[in-house]
Amino acid sequence: MTLAPCPDLFLRDVRPLGATAVDVLVQNGRIAAIGAGLPVPAGAAVEEGGGALLLPGLVEGHAHLDKTMWGLPWYRNEVGTRLVDRIDNERAFRHASGHDAASQSLNLAQAFLANGTTRIRTHVDIDTQAGLQHLEGVLRTRDAMAPWQQIQTVAFPQSGLLVRPGTAELLNAALAAGADVLGGLDPCAIDGDPVRSLDVLFGIASRHGKPLDIHLHEPGAMGAFSLGLILDRTEALGLQGRVAISHGFCLGDLPPSECNSLLTRMAALGVVLITRAPPSRSVPPLMACRAAGVTVLGGNDGIRDTWTPYGTPDMLERAMLFGLRYNLRRDDEIDVALDCVTRDAAKGCGFADHGLVPGCRAELVLVDAQSVAHAVVARPPRRLVVANGVRVARGGALLPGAWSGAPDAAAITDGSGRLSGALS
Amino acid sequence: MTLAPCPDLFLRDVRPLGATAVDVLVQNGRIAAIGAGLPVPAGAAVEEGGGALLLPGLVEGHAHLDKTMWGLPWYRNEVGTRLVDRIDNERAFRHASGHDAASQSLNLAQAFLANGTTRIRTHVDIDTQAGLQHLEGVLRTRDAMAPWQQIQTVAFPQSGLLVRPGTAELLNAALAAGADVLGGLDPCAIDGDPVRSLDVLFGIASRHGKPLDIHLHEPGAMGAFSLGLILDRTEALGLQGRVAISHGFCLGDLPPSECNSLLTRMAALGVVLITRAPPSRSVPPLMACRAAGVTVLGGNDGIRDTWTPYGTPDMLERAMLFGLRYNLRRDDEIDVALDCVTRDAAKGCGFADHGLVPGCRAELVLVDAQSVAHAVVARPPRRLVVANGVRVARGGALLPGAWSGAPDAAAITDGSGRLSGALS
Repeated sequence: MTLAPCPDLFLRDVRPLGATAVDVLVQNGRIAAIGAGLPVPAGAAVEEGGGALLLPGLVEGHAHLDKTMWGLPWYRNEVGTRLVDRIDNERAFRHASGHDAASQSLNLAQAFLANGTTRIRTHVDIDTQAGLQHLEGVLRTRDAMAPWQQIQTVAFPQSGLLVRPGTAELLNAALAAGADVLGGLDPCAIDGDPVRSLDVLFGIASRHGKPLDIHLHEPGAMGAFSLGLILDRTEALGLQGRVAISHGFCLGDLPPSECNSLLTRMAALGVVLITRAPPSRSVPPLMACRAAGVTVLGGNDGIRDTWTPYGTPDMLERAMLFGLRYNLRRDDEIDVALDCVTRDAAKGCGFADHGLVPGCRAELVLVDAQSVAHAVVARPPRRLVVANGVRVARGGALLPGAWSGAPDAAAITDGSGRLSGALS
Repeated sequence: MTLAPCPDLFLRDVRPLGATAVDVLVQNGRIAAIGAGLPVPAGAAVEEGGGALLLPGLVEGHAHLDKTMWGLPWYRNEVGTRLVDRIDNERAFRHASGHDAASQSLNLAQAFLANGTTRIRTHVDIDTQAGLQHLEGVLRTRDAMAPWQQIQTVAFPQSGLLVRPGTAELLNAALAAGADVLGGLDPCAIDGDPVRSLDVLFGIASRHGKPLDIHLHEPGAMGAFSLGLILDRTEALGLQGRVAISHGFCLGDLPPSECNSLLTRMAALGVVLITRAPPSRSVPPLMACRAAGVTVLGGNDGIRDTWTPYGTPDMLERAMLFGLRYNLRRDDEIDVALDCVTRDAAKGCGFADHGLVPGCRAELVLVDAQSVAHAVVARPPRRLVVANGVRVARGGALLPGAWSGAPDAAAITDGSGRLSGALS
């Protein structure tokens, strides 16, 4: 999909990450120049920043767009508390209700964009009941949003790999169909045979030359054991810089010496950690991870689905929850929380050309805040969101006009022609 | 302060806590009737609820209104991480900056009201540097807000009791000046002499016949030891139902058997627990507390002050943070989170006539939500806030007209005549 050429955009008087005010010139969807007192090219659209704080596009590192019930009638949660209760309940509910991964992922992706998120990694359930149906839906959303938002899809065996025969073949098919990353899940606790499970998983990834992002909920020693097996295979197969661990609760359970030795090995292998910083679980120690050289990045995990009613498509709120979970109170500490949903998230997921320097894609977010820390704690409405050089949202709502040049404009409305993007 | 008589108010088609739609008749500041198809009295103002969710007035059980920098220029936090660093930094900062407890507490109290909070318990620093200055400021706010919001003040020795001679006399003076509750703080960790500290503290409370609310940050065995001393004195002095423990982190550290034996004793003595459900600390086990018969209620603790930049004057957001901290995912569990900032908070703080039954003060909050759980996770703008039978706020902003009948209307504006109440 291509967009009609759009005029230059000139943002006057904005403060990148709270620094001294500058102007930003956007040309051809990229940042062309940043500096004080830049000349305004003839024909450029001028946006007065009024000293607003400028953030780069926000990055969601761990979503489940295909599961969400965002915008649907309230789902009354009466689900049991075990992981398998939640997995089985969801698969059965989605099958029985005809839950539509295409329209639901589009709803949520648009709400993310309205709140400044321009890159998303989303896990998509692949199982023997649904086959590739959910992936097909999310790939439609990916294509519809492509001009403004980059969506990576992870083929995710939510119901297990070995325990449901036929899943490995489906994962192969999912990668062939265009999934960007191979997902995995608890090789001990769910699959019950960690060595064979990981051998199958890494075999699929290697065959397709795709990176891995493995959900590891397993606590304590069990999780550390599985993590060790993952690191062994990462090293043996030369997958340095191609593997991510999502959740990694076990790292918060281990004695510091044991945790640090795993972190040292992860850093050497370029294995990254992705967490939602849950308040009710152990979490990887953020500052120790960074000190060891392990990239940590943030994601919401599920938003308003059968697993959890919580969550909003707002990565500044996720950064705030990082701040609360990791007790980041000083301004310099809260800057780290923002890194986890911007720079480090782009780096860890492999999103290219992200940032506030010339040459990067023009993904710009303006908020009325005095500092980065203020933006994180207050989560003000996004005064302006620019994606691919185009002004796409103001005040948390998508701008209808911004989409008019796109061939697929109809696909990103809710059918009534109304754009759905605001938080609800 | 008295208000001019106001006409009856009739709320049509609202769903109390998500139940079937009813009408609510408000007369003389009280709920006069609740039911389906009520007749509208002549002259009553009619408010169309349109099926909105009706909540009772929200209750803030642990605030520090006097400390906040809400609405002021951003305070860059570079404070050390120890409790004493934060205490000493704050006392010095407030002294040097001329921080005004009257105007700041008013700012925050109004923002709470705009978001539906009609009752607040607030701790006010009493120390030998500031004397009663902060209390005097908060008492002015209490009086200005009295028609619409009930504020309890706790005389709180933030810098310690024994360690700063002269503090006991100031606490006596604070209670004589009108503080409602006597506060306390870590008798081991801060005062260093738990028996004498608590004896002095309970002596002051008994002399004035005032209840107690003691900050107990002490972890593990030390906290359990202090808590035991507090329970001993509660029992010996016949203060059943008159003592609250704020924070009580230690209860989250103890083995279940030891914790439960303390909870059993707390329940027998009517000692309540007040927590902000911090994601980065141990917390009292909510469901075990309730099972033992201990009332647990919620508070924000500091909001945007030198201790912490986090927090908003929105008790639905605090309920959400309870939900995340205690992993409350089922709808029936999330109802408990709301209890902690409504019914149980009113009960635990001793706020009378609170609730959604005839005879209670008409403190009513309407939100566009499908259920209580939806309201907690989404924290929608307060469509309408009624306090003392008067419509005082819509959409998160105070209504200027609502205040016009009050003698002190000028005192509740920011001086420019503009009402300050929205979240910022």
